[in-house]
Amino acid sequence: MAKRKGLSSDVCPVARSLDVIGDRWSLMIIRDAFDGMRRFGEFQKSLGIARNILADRLQRLVAEEILDVAPASDGTAYQEYVLTAKGKGLFPVVVGLRQWGERNLFSKGEPRSTMIERGSGKPIQKMALRGRDGEVLGPDETVVKKVRRAK
Amino acid sequence: MAKRKGLSSDVCPVARSLDVIGDRWSLMIIRDAFDGMRRFGEFQKSLGIARNILADRLQRLVAEEILDVAPASDGTAYQEYVLTAKGKGLFPVVVGLRQWGERNLFSKGEPRSTMIERGSGKPIQKMALRGRDGEVLGPDETVVKKVRRAK
Repeated sequence: MAKRKGLSSDVCPVARSLDVIGDRWSLMIIRDAFDGMRRFGEFQKSLGIARNILADRLQRLVAEEILDVAPASDGTAYQEYVLTAKGKGLFPVVVGLRQWGERNLFSKGEPRSTMIERGSGKPIQKMALRGRDGEVLGPDETVVKKVRRAK
Repeated sequence: MAKRKGLSSDVCPVARSLDVIGDRWSLMIIRDAFDGMRRFGEFQKSLGIARNILADRLQRLVAEEILDVAPASDGTAYQEYVLTAKGKGLFPVVVGLRQWGERNLFSKGEPRSTMIERGSGKPIQKMALRGRDGEVLGPDETVVKKVRRAK
């Protein structure tokens, strides 16, 4: 989390998002939370990172209201970390990273995890940006209006 | 880019993607490239980062075949950096970060940049994951199958 430069006041929503979650470990923790992990030990085992780094990232994700702290679901004294509604809003970002990786970072036949529909077991569609009329939009069909002022 | 731990051999595509672009500056450079920036000086002015950090990130993005180096479009001796097809595949990730930021990280009426359809000027749809039949899928309607072995 070095090199923080106050992107939190940037007019660009991409910059603000990266100010909050633009850190590999934060996004890996969020990925694990989507996969159902809830406990410090589960995240640590999955990610293999130092406890102090994990504790720091979890604390920051709680402070940003991406994760919430809850009592253990099995009645023990453990704390659990669960995605808030704001955190669940990152689902398209995590799926976008997954699909880009699937397409570009594996060689043919190389083992990989894959996302399917829970009910049917069918593969999911490739995510795409759509215009108001439902047509798929690529980067050349969109433009960023620099600043929308408050009315 | 500290703490690299060999996620490049992970079976999870999210992990591999973050190994390549899970760095705030890399994603900010990619954002700027989608916004039409092509030159070192443009990225530097936009991001306000040290030249050596920018040079390092650009070099890595070229090595990963996300950016390509091209001669200047105006015939001068400058180099330009342009998104490859692989780089353009990150569009849903950048738009996902944008939409999450728009929704969660601005107070009411606060000035922000916004993405519109280039032709019509209309706002774009919120990105969503869809199943094979077109229905929107949330995190609870999907599951990650851990490893798909090569056939």
